[in-house]
Amino acid sequence: MLQIELISEAEFQRVRNAKIDKYSRLALLSDMCTANTLATVKRAGSGHLGSSFSSLDIVTYLYHYEMNVAELGVDHPDRDIYFSSKGHDAPGHYAVLHSLGLLAEERFELLRRLNGTHGHPDVSIPGMEANTGSLGMGISKAKGMALAKQMSGAKGRVMVMTGDGELQEGQIWESLQTAAYQKVNNLIAIVDFNKIQTDKYVKEIIDLGDLAKKFDAFGWHVEICDGHDFAALEAAFARLKQVVDKPKVLIADTIKGKGVSFMEGPQSVKDGNGLYRWHSGAPDNESFEAGYAEIVQRINARLEQLNLAPLNKRVMATQERNKVTLKATAEKVVTAYGEALLKIGGERQDIVVLDADLSADCGLRPFEKTYPDRFIENGIAEQDMVSTAGGLALHGFLPIVNSFGVFLASRANEQIYCNATEKTKIIYVCHYAGLIPAGPGKSHQSLRDISLFGALPNCTIIEPCNALETEQALRWCVEQAEHNCMMRLVISPSPRTIDLPDNYQLSFGRGAVINDGTDAILFAYGPVMMNEALTAAEILKEQGVTLKVVNLPWLNEIDLGWFAETCANSKFLFALDNHSGYGGLGDLLLNALMSSPELSSRLLTKFAIDELPACGNPEEALAFHKVDGRSLAGRIADVIGKG
Amino acid sequence: MLQIELISEAEFQRVRNAKIDKYSRLALLSDMCTANTLATVKRAGSGHLGSSFSSLDIVTYLYHYEMNVAELGVDHPDRDIYFSSKGHDAPGHYAVLHSLGLLAEERFELLRRLNGTHGHPDVSIPGMEANTGSLGMGISKAKGMALAKQMSGAKGRVMVMTGDGELQEGQIWESLQTAAYQKVNNLIAIVDFNKIQTDKYVKEIIDLGDLAKKFDAFGWHVEICDGHDFAALEAAFARLKQVVDKPKVLIADTIKGKGVSFMEGPQSVKDGNGLYRWHSGAPDNESFEAGYAEIVQRINARLEQLNLAPLNKRVMATQERNKVTLKATAEKVVTAYGEALLKIGGERQDIVVLDADLSADCGLRPFEKTYPDRFIENGIAEQDMVSTAGGLALHGFLPIVNSFGVFLASRANEQIYCNATEKTKIIYVCHYAGLIPAGPGKSHQSLRDISLFGALPNCTIIEPCNALETEQALRWCVEQAEHNCMMRLVISPSPRTIDLPDNYQLSFGRGAVINDGTDAILFAYGPVMMNEALTAAEILKEQGVTLKVVNLPWLNEIDLGWFAETCANSKFLFALDNHSGYGGLGDLLLNALMSSPELSSRLLTKFAIDELPACGNPEEALAFHKVDGRSLAGRIADVIGKG
Repeated sequence: MLQIELISEAEFQRVRNAKIDKYSRLALLSDMCTANTLATVKRAGSGHLGSSFSSLDIVTYLYHYEMNVAELGVDHPDRDIYFSSKGHDAPGHYAVLHSLGLLAEERFELLRRLNGTHGHPDVSIPGMEANTGSLGMGISKAKGMALAKQMSGAKGRVMVMTGDGELQEGQIWESLQTAAYQKVNNLIAIVDFNKIQTDKYVKEIIDLGDLAKKFDAFGWHVEICDGHDFAALEAAFARLKQVVDKPKVLIADTIKGKGVSFMEGPQSVKDGNGLYRWHSGAPDNESFEAGYAEIVQRINARLEQLNLAPLNKRVMATQERNKVTLKATAEKVVTAYGEALLKIGGERQDIVVLDADLSADCGLRPFEKTYPDRFIENGIAEQDMVSTAGGLALHGFLPIVNSFGVFLASRANEQIYCNATEKTKIIYVCHYAGLIPAGPGKSHQSLRDISLFGALPNCTIIEPCNALETEQALRWCVEQAEHNCMMRLVISPSPRTIDLPDNYQLSFGRGAVINDGTDAILFAYGPVMMNEALTAAEILKEQGVTLKVVNLPWLNEIDLGWFAETCANSKFLFALDNHSGYGGLGDLLLNALMSSPELSSRLLTKFAIDELPACGNPEEALAFHKVDGRSLAGRIADVIGKG
Repeated sequence: MLQIELISEAEFQRVRNAKIDKYSRLALLSDMCTANTLATVKRAGSGHLGSSFSSLDIVTYLYHYEMNVAELGVDHPDRDIYFSSKGHDAPGHYAVLHSLGLLAEERFELLRRLNGTHGHPDVSIPGMEANTGSLGMGISKAKGMALAKQMSGAKGRVMVMTGDGELQEGQIWESLQTAAYQKVNNLIAIVDFNKIQTDKYVKEIIDLGDLAKKFDAFGWHVEICDGHDFAALEAAFARLKQVVDKPKVLIADTIKGKGVSFMEGPQSVKDGNGLYRWHSGAPDNESFEAGYAEIVQRINARLEQLNLAPLNKRVMATQERNKVTLKATAEKVVTAYGEALLKIGGERQDIVVLDADLSADCGLRPFEKTYPDRFIENGIAEQDMVSTAGGLALHGFLPIVNSFGVFLASRANEQIYCNATEKTKIIYVCHYAGLIPAGPGKSHQSLRDISLFGALPNCTIIEPCNALETEQALRWCVEQAEHNCMMRLVISPSPRTIDLPDNYQLSFGRGAVINDGTDAILFAYGPVMMNEALTAAEILKEQGVTLKVVNLPWLNEIDLGWFAETCANSKFLFALDNHSGYGGLGDLLLNALMSSPELSSRLLTKFAIDELPACGNPEEALAFHKVDGRSLAGRIADVIGKG
């Protein structure tokens, strides 16, 4: 068994109270937080190490020396405020809050779990000042807090950390402009300038040029320092205190993955043949153990040097060493999408693929490598990406635009609409659709994307359930569709491979029966919810209820003849959305039912996710929203009177 | 009668072929286009003069001397491309296209009319290269076109005009960053630096600081010149041609309203006591005649000086001089909103009002003037505005966030979602909701805003139908609502004042019967559609059909008991949305019907706007979408079998 250890708060107290010099203390505290960050991410099975580590010296310095929050408490109106705009460095932030006793240990342990801490910040967690995780909003939100302090007369500074890749987002520059003009002088931005974004150097995605010059041109006071040198940080914040006539930015020169040698910036990129491996995801067992040992060794060496007793740790969790995970074996529709894109992209020279720094996650690497001239890496600038696609489409190309659904459908919504009014054809691929994985939390879970595309009069929305249907769906979008398409794809491994009928051929507006039954019909789509639907059918079968399960990948188009035929002998209809109940498959079927008096007498029950999405592991999140197979079976039985 | 004259294309040909010097010719052509712009805007009754005029010398120069489009035609792949990102200067652009014979005169005459030209650019109009009008997208779209030229090997430059206020939009800075890094060197941006945005100086909204320094910091080559000096423009474009290693920007120093003395920049702002009057809207008769006479006099003086015959014009249209317009007399819900905001804002010190440079249009001026400390002018930066509101809400304030619905709901959608996940309370007011006025076109008409808010689990959506209900709705949002609210308001004068029952009191999820009837029920909301609904009832009454018309201001909440009672004796139900049929009132009622087996047997027919919104006057647009009273009466009669 693999043992995962935690450094308890008592140990942090010991170091805080030890008679040692300030910088040694900070180095110790930061390393201890680094160890705890690594441990909680390993336990969670996912999380962001690289930029938790690059920012940890700064966050440690802020909370332990610069800010008054430990003294005043996390709710005091005069407290200094700190939060991270990038948000994926939350594991490191939690570790610092825990190190001060501001975040209870039992909650801190449970990263990315229901009732634990979220993958990205959430204000329900003590000490977390804002919800972030979608990039670029932080300075604006901090500006609102700083203005609130000005208006209410509350003391304290507002400090917000941004990434460097994050500066590709346009909202950053909006907020810099307004904050300077509005004289939000109690605001400090800190750039964690670690020079690597998701898995490549910032300068290889969209180079930022001379950052100091940019901030200066936008009217901000600029300081620069080594973000891992506590004396330099102290001096920089002292200088910032002297500047009272404008908002201020500290560009902190940092190293991504700092503190674990093989995760650190340049060397690690070299080891990865140009790709950085440690931005997100838990390390494998060997890397975890090597990294953890390295940090602990450094801590103990320092403790010894300072004549302090070695570190006390306790076992927080154990994990089976050779567990075969779904991730390693299961089908992934996003992989199938990447392969189909490569194939169809080879057949059609008019296809241009656009990406916003999620190439690997979106399955684009095969296309990117094979057709670099038709691949546009646009950085974390979704609005610009979508309007660029609009220009390409007006000039004869077929753009395929990729990002996570929660970002693409939402952040670039008006740009998508503007393109649609030009009546060109663009394919938008909303990755990471739906509730799962639920660990990253609500900034990443996409439960509104159908509704955000739904009112476009010229866009077909489709979500495939397996690899075969994914290729057919992409081919349909490229070859058959006469206008825009939105394809939504789940990002996680399929919990089971959905078996479509022999010789399955995707047919416009029509679905396919995956499990036969006579007592009721459940319509669903996509690998995650099709799995739950089939599980529900299995459970109901044991109770003597047979449930027809229909895979319907079309989310805003329906063949009414097919639908009437499918429903012919069923009184009870159910729709299962991996989406809000507003505007999803359920509403499509409601409209279809109302289209004819015969159909309208049938009862349709919608199952959907009508709350803000829960954070947790898949089982927890599905159960929380009562859309796991077992809950569904119970809810169906209740409706048809066999509960 | 007021006569509105037009200078026909033949006159432009005469000047183009005259043996005169280049700069005199350009001055003549530009003045003639200025006259025609003024004429078409006056005829349309609305349109944007100020920035059509500030950019006209540049656009005239580009099309008549710099670009190859007159020679190659508007569809040639090697053509130079020009379009305006701000888009509201379209009337001037049309005038230049007309001056070259690229836009047919009969279409050019019909600004903002069905089958004429749109209030903002539309690619269906010959010579218009992109749809714009929502700000900040243009450089991105131009970048897409420039990349398309690079990929396809097509020649020609891509030139895009931006406003200066428009540079407050974050997408601009995204696009500057990516274009520089991606080496989009066949791209030229032109800033129409006229220093005035909607009605105030840019420096009084959100100052842009040193623009050249900003562009330079973003890696662009910068040229600066007088945008009204043709020799300077010629020299600047010659210099731009020499720069081949980076994208280029020309900051053109211009005067808003150029060409009509009393509409020109600084003096005009002084005359307006700090406010610029000529950004949008047609001038009154006296101003029109004085302005037109001034331009024609200048043209004729120049023609005489050049020994050319005086200008030929023809009467394009006549208008009744003393026509009383709806605008002058009708109730406006936005005015009622402004008054209610002043009143309720005075009662509640926690209310902060945020604006994105639409203060007058959104009825905010009374609050802005009375409570300047609780009014945040955020410039044209909707995303930043919404996240700033998020920060304020986290610190105890109640932000009321204003913009046009098409911008607010769409551009800042992800920011709205992020705020919602923090479970604070914010009131979003989506102004200019729905189809009318239809003159500005699809960039301004908001038919998707309900759908863009609808999947938020903690936001109530409401649209009031008259002044009384507007105040009650705002009060409900401020005092009663436990979470976020979205209030949508039409911006045009109410075509009739909707009479609510005596002692009307807004009641959660409930509507009110405005016209009684027994043959069918029509549910509607807001002054525009309530008027059409009542008109339909009046027409049907003549045919012996009595239609119950219900005003239901709640767009995503319904009291099922009230609804069942209201529908008790009616088989035929109709819902009328001033919105797409996706996710509006119709879908709310569908879901309500499906909630009980008794109700589900009723037939509901949805009336909505399921196409891209038409541009035209209100009658044209309503009829085009078949949601005018007459069409509705016919459609209802058809369904109930009395057609």
